[in-house]
Amino acid sequence: MSVSAGREFLSIPGPTVIPDAVLAAMQRPAVDIYSGPLVALTDSLLADLQKIFRTAGRTYIYAANGHGAWEAALTNVLSRGDKVLVLESGRFAIAWGEAAKMLGAEVEVLAGDMRRAIRPEAVEARLRKGDVKAVLVTQIDTASGVVNDIPAISAAIRAAGSDALLMVDAVASLGCMPFEMDAWGVDVAMSGSQKGLMTPPGLSFTAAGPRAREAHRKANMRTPYWDWTFRDGDVHYHKYCGTPPEHLLYGLRAALDLLFAEGMENVFNRHRLLAEATRRAVGMWAEGQAIGFNASEPEERSDTVTTVVMRNGAGSGAIADYCREKCGVVLGRGLGSHEGKAFRIAHMGHVNAPMILGTLSVVEMALASLDVPHGKGGMTAAVEYLAKAVPA
Amino acid sequence: MSVSAGREFLSIPGPTVIPDAVLAAMQRPAVDIYSGPLVALTDSLLADLQKIFRTAGRTYIYAANGHGAWEAALTNVLSRGDKVLVLESGRFAIAWGEAAKMLGAEVEVLAGDMRRAIRPEAVEARLRKGDVKAVLVTQIDTASGVVNDIPAISAAIRAAGSDALLMVDAVASLGCMPFEMDAWGVDVAMSGSQKGLMTPPGLSFTAAGPRAREAHRKANMRTPYWDWTFRDGDVHYHKYCGTPPEHLLYGLRAALDLLFAEGMENVFNRHRLLAEATRRAVGMWAEGQAIGFNASEPEERSDTVTTVVMRNGAGSGAIADYCREKCGVVLGRGLGSHEGKAFRIAHMGHVNAPMILGTLSVVEMALASLDVPHGKGGMTAAVEYLAKAVPA
Amino acid sequence: MSVSAGREFLSIPGPTVIPDAVLAAMQRPAVDIYSGPLVALTDSLLADLQKIFRTAGRTYIYAANGHGAWEAALTNVLSRGDKVLVLESGRFAIAWGEAAKMLGAEVEVLAGDMRRAIRPEAVEARLRKGDVKAVLVTQIDTASGVVNDIPAISAAIRAAGSDALLMVDAVASLGCMPFEMDAWGVDVAMSGSQKGLMTPPGLSFTAAGPRAREAHRKANMRTPYWDWTFRDGDVHYHKYCGTPPEHLLYGLRAALDLLFAEGMENVFNRHRLLAEATRRAVGMWAEGQAIGFNASEPEERSDTVTTVVMRNGAGSGAIADYCREKCGVVLGRGLGSHEGKAFRIAHMGHVNAPMILGTLSVVEMALASLDVPHGKGGMTAAVEYLAKAVPA
Amino acid sequence: MSVSAGREFLSIPGPTVIPDAVLAAMQRPAVDIYSGPLVALTDSLLADLQKIFRTAGRTYIYAANGHGAWEAALTNVLSRGDKVLVLESGRFAIAWGEAAKMLGAEVEVLAGDMRRAIRPEAVEARLRKGDVKAVLVTQIDTASGVVNDIPAISAAIRAAGSDALLMVDAVASLGCMPFEMDAWGVDVAMSGSQKGLMTPPGLSFTAAGPRAREAHRKANMRTPYWDWTFRDGDVHYHKYCGTPPEHLLYGLRAALDLLFAEGMENVFNRHRLLAEATRRAVGMWAEGQAIGFNASEPEERSDTVTTVVMRNGAGSGAIADYCREKCGVVLGRGLGSHEGKAFRIAHMGHVNAPMILGTLSVVEMALASLDVPHGKGGMTAAVEYLAKAVPA
Repeated sequence: MSVSAGREFLSIPGPTVIPDAVLAAMQRPAVDIYSGPLVALTDSLLADLQKIFRTAGRTYIYAANGHGAWEAALTNVLSRGDKVLVLESGRFAIAWGEAAKMLGAEVEVLAGDMRRAIRPEAVEARLRKGDVKAVLVTQIDTASGVVNDIPAISAAIRAAGSDALLMVDAVASLGCMPFEMDAWGVDVAMSGSQKGLMTPPGLSFTAAGPRAREAHRKANMRTPYWDWTFRDGDVHYHKYCGTPPEHLLYGLRAALDLLFAEGMENVFNRHRLLAEATRRAVGMWAEGQAIGFNASEPEERSDTVTTVVMRNGAGSGAIADYCREKCGVVLGRGLGSHEGKAFRIAHMGHVNAPMILGTLSVVEMALASLDVPHGKGGMTAAVEYLAKAVPA
Repeated sequence: MSVSAGREFLSIPGPTVIPDAVLAAMQRPAVDIYSGPLVALTDSLLADLQKIFRTAGRTYIYAANGHGAWEAALTNVLSRGDKVLVLESGRFAIAWGEAAKMLGAEVEVLAGDMRRAIRPEAVEARLRKGDVKAVLVTQIDTASGVVNDIPAISAAIRAAGSDALLMVDAVASLGCMPFEMDAWGVDVAMSGSQKGLMTPPGLSFTAAGPRAREAHRKANMRTPYWDWTFRDGDVHYHKYCGTPPEHLLYGLRAALDLLFAEGMENVFNRHRLLAEATRRAVGMWAEGQAIGFNASEPEERSDTVTTVVMRNGAGSGAIADYCREKCGVVLGRGLGSHEGKAFRIAHMGHVNAPMILGTLSVVEMALASLDVPHGKGGMTAAVEYLAKAVPA
Repeated sequence: MSVSAGREFLSIPGPTVIPDAVLAAMQRPAVDIYSGPLVALTDSLLADLQKIFRTAGRTYIYAANGHGAWEAALTNVLSRGDKVLVLESGRFAIAWGEAAKMLGAEVEVLAGDMRRAIRPEAVEARLRKGDVKAVLVTQIDTASGVVNDIPAISAAIRAAGSDALLMVDAVASLGCMPFEMDAWGVDVAMSGSQKGLMTPPGLSFTAAGPRAREAHRKANMRTPYWDWTFRDGDVHYHKYCGTPPEHLLYGLRAALDLLFAEGMENVFNRHRLLAEATRRAVGMWAEGQAIGFNASEPEERSDTVTTVVMRNGAGSGAIADYCREKCGVVLGRGLGSHEGKAFRIAHMGHVNAPMILGTLSVVEMALASLDVPHGKGGMTAAVEYLAKAVPA
Repeated sequence: MSVSAGREFLSIPGPTVIPDAVLAAMQRPAVDIYSGPLVALTDSLLADLQKIFRTAGRTYIYAANGHGAWEAALTNVLSRGDKVLVLESGRFAIAWGEAAKMLGAEVEVLAGDMRRAIRPEAVEARLRKGDVKAVLVTQIDTASGVVNDIPAISAAIRAAGSDALLMVDAVASLGCMPFEMDAWGVDVAMSGSQKGLMTPPGLSFTAAGPRAREAHRKANMRTPYWDWTFRDGDVHYHKYCGTPPEHLLYGLRAALDLLFAEGMENVFNRHRLLAEATRRAVGMWAEGQAIGFNASEPEERSDTVTTVVMRNGAGSGAIADYCREKCGVVLGRGLGSHEGKAFRIAHMGHVNAPMILGTLSVVEMALASLDVPHGKGGMTAAVEYLAKAVPA
């Protein structure tokens, strides 16, 4: 017996649900890569990405995934031997740091843990010792569900008197929560198409501030494909260092149109409310002692993904299997040390009240059906919260 | 503030949610209307519609909506002046009867009411008086949310010694709950593409049993477009009396493939469970006395749509508006005498647990946000019921 | 060996090539049938169909194919026993007349032949004898490829002092060549979606002038599905007598947008030029004596389809097979008495120079490969004509 | 006056026409990146790319364009300071060499010219001098339309006693003409999705033979995103170094299915015949002395793109403009030194007889309409050739 045969709910933290308008925009013949319409499309996208990153700096679009944009960010500003400080708050900054190491940077990790955000004071303390060329940090770590306070980290760097470049991975946050590249003093930001930007995977982005551009001039890690200078060229073909990924670009155009039509303020509020509804439900369930939040501090829980851990260290697979096979909801699985011990509920991108509440209902079904001890009233709490937060 | 900007939930009782596979199947160039592939497609569809109607009789596909198939059903078996008995249990049999009247039949309505199913004993009593050529009945009335007991009505006709044709509108039921055309003694059945069959509107169907075919020979209401005899012709072009609606046919093919892949037993069970979950939630809410089921008898509530009435006769519009504008859920509105006084929750077609539970959650949000007095625990009841009904 | 594996060329006279924009417009979720956007869509379509038919009269959209619209046209204005005069110039008016007969009209055919247009003087002569309620004529007969002079036929009716309704089948002409419903005194016009209107089959249309509306009041053939009066109702649901065929409507919207963006004058000129290019090629080939135009008079050859006959009465199947299997071009086959003896080249709808010239080139390949005697220089003639007609 | 308003013909040498089946395959929701179906998809693609490259070596799929795969090919096998020999026969090997230089290689160009293929004897002569780590060559240069003899070049390397790696850019040839990686002794091959593989741009590929893998172990240009070793990892996520570009992968799957269904032998023959038909037409036109082939030697003209040069060094823009604006055919423009002086006709990927013949007809229209002196009978020659080459 299964009640899964409707539209599958993809509740993983990326790729996220692709809006119909985005898919429709990709349903087109290929177009000439030298002609007017595609050139105008590129111009509109680069300008709108500035609005999304909130920067007057230049933006770049890569035919690549997020790991590609990691490499783009690093190679454009660093030289072999540069010291890079990685701020740990989950898995992804660590992996970014590993990429930096392979590229020839000297990488140091400011140890954190899977359950906590980065503490700005620790950053400041380390930077006072000098010697750091760049700081790598994720705004939201998709694995841990922790959100970092980027402006506070930026302030910490300045307070330490460091001129280290602040490089931010906004893959799991851009388009979902505020990101203020210029106002926060971020030097390099990067992101991908497949999360808050609601476009199929295959595009990624970097944005470069003035200090990054300066560092770029001396960087020796630069390679042709990622190179900003080449992409600054006037010819359209330069913008993508080769053939533009046209269909994905048309998809991205449609996605950005959706975001702007809704208004970024509402987009951010929507994410905040749906995340809080999720936390209300999880909070109730947690009273049963069998499951709980991964992020130990309430204020460090992100608005795009909630990581739920099994207190006894096992059993998350059965929950995810039930949700998928019986109900048609695909939860995110625990990554790395969380494998088999956590599941993740994404509330990111093209999501609304019925999608999130439907997902939470199915998780509550799974807990009941699998006899996972849990506090009652999760759905009631989520619904009551949202009803108040969204007045008639 | 709105949390609506994700995938809109279409929770109206038709057209229903179109599966992605169905839309994809329609994304194709036109094909030759005389060539092999389209001919084979038609053959497969006509044969599979026999499986869906559960009949050895012939099936017909119309480029038309359900009202078109109403006309097809009537004109193929009736003559002007024939007495037709319409069994009232909502709005749709009445409207079908109006069509029969305009076509020249003498129409009599066996009065029922909006809140009750047809009582077979009343049918039997009326038919004992003789004189009825055909009985018109809907299996599920989309407006009232009432389900009729077709085999019992069939038995009543026979018990009365009547040879009236039993003609059933299965628009809001086919593909969602059992329908046994031959076993139940149904002579003519009709339906449309856009509900349980999960295909865009624009196709409708009739199925004809042996007694219907006999009546067909003498019927004088027959017109070229709907005529079964013409459509029985060997040439492919005859099957549609003209150009086949190819894209919709490819869509229907994909939809039937989905149904058969799931298995009709599971399809019916899925609908039954999701409907019962809906009723559990509505049942809890009804304790607040402000809203309640339209169908007064529990066993007469359909498995495809639940009609919820406002006890004070007003206010359903605000609920539907809230769900749509704030949350992205489009509820069915009250039809006819229910206008402004009822809303309808569809659980029909391509629906699964998160879709229905998401919809119910949003309705519960609306009740709270609009201060509609309602019993608490609706979502809890729905989730608990489903968790038990769908064991791990 | 085959060189067919690219985009298949559908060169049949309907359904025609569907523009990508039309398919993309259909790639959407179902929408509420009572809500604003769909209501606005309907309003825009009905108004734009007036522009297409060039009438101030009302227009109607049916979920039906062209045969459905034939029935709609007839039943809305005729009564059983009315005398209908069918003007023969191919197959389709004849078939329309057969529908009228089954509906109860008394049908008389003004005999013509497969190779000639209707002679207005013959119409006038017959009408002088009185007694005709309606005249049925096709503007272009898809089988014969003959175009009729509708304004001359209209003048002939008036010259005869007849008040017969002029009913025109514009299925194979609307959107491809001028049609002036009001200026030409046409009372009822009908068409379908799948030819000049470049939309998948499944929609058809009628347009009603003032004299048709008057006849409508007394007509006794009217049936609910086709009835204009019902469809004139204010409620959106009335416009389609039931559920609107939404996806096809969105497709039609995109198609009309394409036509208006091009401009109807250019649309008509484009068809005229591409048709003439086709005739130039066929004219050269015909010098080989094995094939020739079906339409004997040059000025009676239509701008949407060219019917080419085999002078020895056989062999068209091999040509069509070669074009399809070896080259990927699907020609129209000969219909009725032309079966096996003719093929048809459509130049209708979403066609441009490379499509038509590509098709003609392939036909020239087939003639050569199959040793069909033919005059040389067909492609040269076609290209030279078009090059002059389309100056740089 | 324009006859362009049908399906636009994209006759540029990449991106090429996307088959409908490929677009349809991309019209799907995102799927879980850790789940079975996507993993199986990847396995099938990697295995089928081995069949396409004709190698037992490993294949890699990048979310990147062809320039990305250039970088991947270089960085995986080279170290900074390695001597690379670039074989000139147009523009693209030169550009690949520029990438190698920026990555730190010492680059030497074996001078050739825009009109000739590489002479294997010159390669042998240079290699006898030793000191070359890798040889870079394109199989077909998209700009010049020249095809190189890869097995002869490979033999020349061996004849010189060199152990230089043979690295081949098969972007403009793979899937269109034979490529035998292993049999020809190619060490590294790369290509992109958007030409012979008929998939939207955004994917590219490398294939690595045993000598390449050995070189890989010592290479110091390696970077994380492109690295083969990382991508050899067992986890699915490793295969793409991050999120897989799912929609494009589904598109590629559909495209490969089309190729295999046709059979690679027929695919290659189809390209050969359509290319020769193009050359026959261009050959006739060239008699007018105003235009001619870029590739001076008949046997060096490629089967995927024909570059046509203006003998007086100007005017190609007007031809391309006429084809596009008046007729709806988008020709390739001249690149680099050819800008304004050449146009390119692609016959690559999803193309069949009517597409190529339609395109050639339009070019012939342009020559006539613009009074470009040209020999007559181009279309006749093309059609006659193809008719013979494709017997009934």
